[in-house]
Amino acid sequence: MRTFNILPTDKDMRQAIQQKIDNLNKPKGSLGMLEDLAMQISLIQHTFTPTLSHPCHLLLGADHGIEHEGVSVSPRDVTWQQMLNFANGGGGVNLFCRQHGFDLSIIDMGVDHDLSACPQITNRKIAWGTSNFLHAAAMTEEQFNLCIETAVQLVDECKEKECNIICLGEMGIANTSPSSIWMSLFGQIPLEECIGAGAGLNNEGISHKYKVLKAAVDLYLENNRNTPLNAIRYFGGFEMVGAIGAMLRAAELHMVILVDGFIMTACMLAASQLYPNVLDYAVFGHCGDENGHKRLLLLMNAKPILLLGMRLGEGTGALCAYPIIESAIRMINEMNDFDRAHITKYF
Amino acid sequence: MRTFNILPTDKDMRQAIQQKIDNLNKPKGSLGMLEDLAMQISLIQHTFTPTLSHPCHLLLGADHGIEHEGVSVSPRDVTWQQMLNFANGGGGVNLFCRQHGFDLSIIDMGVDHDLSACPQITNRKIAWGTSNFLHAAAMTEEQFNLCIETAVQLVDECKEKECNIICLGEMGIANTSPSSIWMSLFGQIPLEECIGAGAGLNNEGISHKYKVLKAAVDLYLENNRNTPLNAIRYFGGFEMVGAIGAMLRAAELHMVILVDGFIMTACMLAASQLYPNVLDYAVFGHCGDENGHKRLLLLMNAKPILLLGMRLGEGTGALCAYPIIESAIRMINEMNDFDRAHITKYF
Repeated sequence: MRTFNILPTDKDMRQAIQQKIDNLNKPKGSLGMLEDLAMQISLIQHTFTPTLSHPCHLLLGADHGIEHEGVSVSPRDVTWQQMLNFANGGGGVNLFCRQHGFDLSIIDMGVDHDLSACPQITNRKIAWGTSNFLHAAAMTEEQFNLCIETAVQLVDECKEKECNIICLGEMGIANTSPSSIWMSLFGQIPLEECIGAGAGLNNEGISHKYKVLKAAVDLYLENNRNTPLNAIRYFGGFEMVGAIGAMLRAAELHMVILVDGFIMTACMLAASQLYPNVLDYAVFGHCGDENGHKRLLLLMNAKPILLLGMRLGEGTGALCAYPIIESAIRMINEMNDFDRAHITKYF
Repeated sequence: MRTFNILPTDKDMRQAIQQKIDNLNKPKGSLGMLEDLAMQISLIQHTFTPTLSHPCHLLLGADHGIEHEGVSVSPRDVTWQQMLNFANGGGGVNLFCRQHGFDLSIIDMGVDHDLSACPQITNRKIAWGTSNFLHAAAMTEEQFNLCIETAVQLVDECKEKECNIICLGEMGIANTSPSSIWMSLFGQIPLEECIGAGAGLNNEGISHKYKVLKAAVDLYLENNRNTPLNAIRYFGGFEMVGAIGAMLRAAELHMVILVDGFIMTACMLAASQLYPNVLDYAVFGHCGDENGHKRLLLLMNAKPILLLGMRLGEGTGALCAYPIIESAIRMINEMNDFDRAHITKYF
């Protein structure tokens, strides 16, 4: 894989930014997480007057070989059907992109269906779905590298449009499976504690999913050196490795990365295994309902903005958090300070 | 006090609305609280296609006689200084009203300062602050009734502008004191558990606040029949009684009421003591950092939208929650259903 040059944000600025925030006309700390967000984004942009510019949402879709093992309640066809639905503007992700002015790109990273006739879908298909990791690695090294390079290009295209905040979403039936495995391997958490209902499995289904994934992990550990890079390539979907590449490139370019639900949070955990500094650029949009999302967030000391019990994916939870980030940016830029407002400072 | 005719929402519609929500192209329940909000607002508006129209924010300001007892860390003058700051557009409330397109009215309900020269502030002054309830009722019956009537007029003016969602905010140094007392009396919670730091009291300050409020409550209970109406009039500020009147009138007119922090939540609790059906119209914007806000919400089985550790007041927490409500409305109106989207239903 290419190398990324991801610098930590400049923590030496922290005190001066805090001083600016504390002098805004409000009791100290009284805007809670808005103050934290203003701090983080100021650090990312290395400025006292942060901005949000041309927000982009990359919705990455792909199919998973492991789906053939019946680990998901939804059939494989739902991936391409939903991609077309997004292309037609009727999905959850479309609503929230429209609401918040996000530039939405729908990318076929490896859907097992010919979507090339649809002009709203960008064709960056690596293959027609990954291989089944119950038997072998999900993708080859070449496919992995192509996936990362594709993601870098996608982020660069956003950057050319003056984008400085990027949101990532996914569509890929069965992609909670690799997410759970990464959570287990990177978080050193027993696999059974990392597996949830996905889009609606019952207990029997969860138990079957566990058996399949356990067998896959055992085979992987027998035949591979367990490094982050190997685990990412062995289990990842094209949309997930794409998301990881996008996160790393966005951090390299000092962009804010808006992280969505369980799957995107697992991708951020994976990205941070490769480059821990990427976390300085991550804003966690929400904590969803999927079993394990909360624990994933804890592994990264992440404080999500929203807790609305959402578990749709596509980036919907993160997109819904965007106006809160906007509020934080308005606060630090537009709120009077005590001097300008002629108000007796409260403390 | 005048009577309000507040009907419960029509729960018979619930099943049909739920059917519509469940047929949107997403796993059932996967948009979490957005689905709850869409349900509630559909019920309030008695429709399957709810709308949000001309959102209004009433920012009510007044001073409190109890402030003379040193129960607040901020001096009394901060009330009028902040009112002028809001009038000049530099407060927290201004930012978020601008961000979300709220029509902001700044109302002097009883500030202890002449603000009549400021054209951005509507003068509805009942008196120059309430009386000190350590010694006697905060307001007379006439003042109380005038306060309610004023609030009714203010809401009617919003309604004339086609507003169907109203947010209430407050500015009044020392107004956590009456809020704590109402919480104790209406929630039957020992007073000491209802008292927090307000805008930043230390432990000594909290202990002093407790002694003052305890003495005030004891005197009230000695000399008055403890009814909700009496407790509201005896301890309330003009901005708080105004908010209660506005909540009741808004519910009577089938408007959505967006409830802010500790003080506004205490006002909703008080309003619900008079007319329990008002809760059908209440959307709780956030749970703040003020000790007791969470318990207040629990008393009403209220599930707040945001948990961002905010405690500024002015309506800021509720305003920040507005885009989430918008998302819910977009979901129920704009999201494709499974039939239209040609997607295999997940379940």
